[in-house]
Amino acid sequence: MTLDRIYQAAHLLKPAVRRTEIIPAPDISPACELYLKAENLQLTGSFKLRGAYFKISMLTKEEKGKGVIACSAGNHAQGVALAAKEMGISATIFIPSVSPLAKIEATKRLGAEVRIIDGIYDDAYQAALEHQRESGQVFIHPFNDEDVIAGQGTLALELFESLPDVEAIVVPVGGGGLISGIAFAAKMLRPSVKIYGVQAAGAASMFASMEGGAPASLPSVHTFADGIAVKAPGDITYGMCRDYVDQIVTVSDDEIATAILTLMEQTKLVLEGAGAVSVAAIQFDKLPILGKKVCAVVSGGNVDVNILSRIINRGLLTTGRLSELTVELVDKPGQLQEVSGIIASLGANVIKVIHNPSGEDTDINGCLLHISMETRNKEHCQSIKETMQKKGYRTL
Amino acid sequence: MTLDRIYQAAHLLKPAVRRTEIIPAPDISPACELYLKAENLQLTGSFKLRGAYFKISMLTKEEKGKGVIACSAGNHAQGVALAAKEMGISATIFIPSVSPLAKIEATKRLGAEVRIIDGIYDDAYQAALEHQRESGQVFIHPFNDEDVIAGQGTLALELFESLPDVEAIVVPVGGGGLISGIAFAAKMLRPSVKIYGVQAAGAASMFASMEGGAPASLPSVHTFADGIAVKAPGDITYGMCRDYVDQIVTVSDDEIATAILTLMEQTKLVLEGAGAVSVAAIQFDKLPILGKKVCAVVSGGNVDVNILSRIINRGLLTTGRLSELTVELVDKPGQLQEVSGIIASLGANVIKVIHNPSGEDTDINGCLLHISMETRNKEHCQSIKETMQKKGYRTL
Repeated sequence: MTLDRIYQAAHLLKPAVRRTEIIPAPDISPACELYLKAENLQLTGSFKLRGAYFKISMLTKEEKGKGVIACSAGNHAQGVALAAKEMGISATIFIPSVSPLAKIEATKRLGAEVRIIDGIYDDAYQAALEHQRESGQVFIHPFNDEDVIAGQGTLALELFESLPDVEAIVVPVGGGGLISGIAFAAKMLRPSVKIYGVQAAGAASMFASMEGGAPASLPSVHTFADGIAVKAPGDITYGMCRDYVDQIVTVSDDEIATAILTLMEQTKLVLEGAGAVSVAAIQFDKLPILGKKVCAVVSGGNVDVNILSRIINRGLLTTGRLSELTVELVDKPGQLQEVSGIIASLGANVIKVIHNPSGEDTDINGCLLHISMETRNKEHCQSIKETMQKKGYRTL
Repeated sequence: MTLDRIYQAAHLLKPAVRRTEIIPAPDISPACELYLKAENLQLTGSFKLRGAYFKISMLTKEEKGKGVIACSAGNHAQGVALAAKEMGISATIFIPSVSPLAKIEATKRLGAEVRIIDGIYDDAYQAALEHQRESGQVFIHPFNDEDVIAGQGTLALELFESLPDVEAIVVPVGGGGLISGIAFAAKMLRPSVKIYGVQAAGAASMFASMEGGAPASLPSVHTFADGIAVKAPGDITYGMCRDYVDQIVTVSDDEIATAILTLMEQTKLVLEGAGAVSVAAIQFDKLPILGKKVCAVVSGGNVDVNILSRIINRGLLTTGRLSELTVELVDKPGQLQEVSGIIASLGANVIKVIHNPSGEDTDINGCLLHISMETRNKEHCQSIKETMQKKGYRTL
């Protein structure tokens, strides 16, 4: 890798890629002065277009004539599809059948030929490789490719122009393509700038690799942040992270959901799980950035709206702004009224009640009342529970 | 009003107000080339800071010493609170008790003294006026004030600098402060630019006023777009709309919900109802903008996350991506399986089923199956219904 290559990528990308905004986010953490590099506002909704576009630009005329292949159900698929379309090149994208309909449709709309392969990512990947051998088309890897990495690195050049005095950059990490490009550019241009990576705890393959001193492969991944649910980093990205990244930390799915909710409320930006891990790490104090000027890359916003309301819900529960409470009632008049009265008098707002006549572990004439209510925080919910217990109710 | 006044406002606003981004939104309508002026990314989450800040800047030293008053539960409250805080002036905000807790808390966090008044907006307004008479403090009107209007007009100056060849500007309209400032600046600087206003159909007081040729007052308003739920425009804003606005149109709440959903998915921006009406009008072809370069002002993003999932749901239903279907079953084995099979074979995805043993208008041994499913569009749902009917099921 060379800085020249990243500057060349920046030059080629100019007509095709948005120079995304830097948006201040002063209220997310009192610990630092925080800005966001909003790659969710990038064309196709994520940074992936950068690497795909530069990689395809660098193909020979003959390679371009044959067309390109990729395997992805998500951001990389859309990045490759748009890049190929802009350059008038055919793209064949292999997508596992488990992928959401919306992402498949988005890739088709960008003009790619989509082949849906029965099974999960690994099945689609095998089919793509087989097709590659037969067709001789170039396979565009989502991260383990120096041109792809150089393309992603262009983000760092924009970031330094917009925020020349940034002291730390926080980057989501899946396979490691984005952070490799950013870290390389940063350490060449401004070695004092700290580069921190963030992974989902359920897919922390780069974290494990850095700890173990060699590329590690996870048996399985489990996170709703599908954009960074990667079982193993590449050898190129592992090596670059080892050499240029200061630290990698992990965040839980609940922390990611809370970050998505916070970003929606405070900055009015929609992020997907993968895009919000950088902010989650800052919000939950995982990084040594006290008093620093920090830029979090929020790398993508392609979240399925059908699950967004579940994410919001999880975030509200995690922060105690939504609380769930189960109270055992004896089946006699007036109890529902008294319980409602306690909640109202303590300033919470009931939004859902389920009243079940009996449960396995209750009296035959007892019943369970499941209450969802808006609360100020966890302490607020706890005080409601304690008041009920004092009045003789059993809470579960 | 003079252009000078708007330029003066722009000069004074520079240190306190964000120059918000222009974000392309190419896929919302095939009819025009669309850009968004993203005032949801403004400090406090809406454009209201502009007018409040300029108005307060223009007060005399004596007036500033006394402090200011406002009445609002929403964006204006936060705009006044932040503007006053920035200038070291005390602000007292009267808020009706029906307002959401989150907005009250946001206003308090900005340092304002909040007085919660039992009742609706009109009650809080009366209390604010009374306080004004007693205290002699300046009341900051949310829209019917030339300084406030000049402050909002600064948005047009930024817009012309970013998009010099814009041909039409589409603006949300409540009381009319924002569109008055924008329309005046636009018609002075570039008379050929068309200015279109958009109101919620359930609160179309400026629309009615323009139609009737005089300020009209609605007996009541009904829309979830609370930021523009205004019963009557002011005399100043009415006069400016009459003189400088080309046309005002209305959109339904379902159209607004669809626009919010579309903006989240396509541009990754969170908008409140009031902020999205401009896009709703474009998406649902209410404006003569074929082939034009258009900028829609998306004016605010302060939406309650608790209702955002309901808005998403409504948008999915309106566009047919979520469909609800009720089928009558006779209570015998195998029917649930057959119905599920029909849905699966036609490519829809069931996400919720409620199976009710009997309804008032069904057989005593019949039952009703309520199904929610992800579908491609309304035709897709219709074809599922028809297939069931052909197999002998009654659908409701």
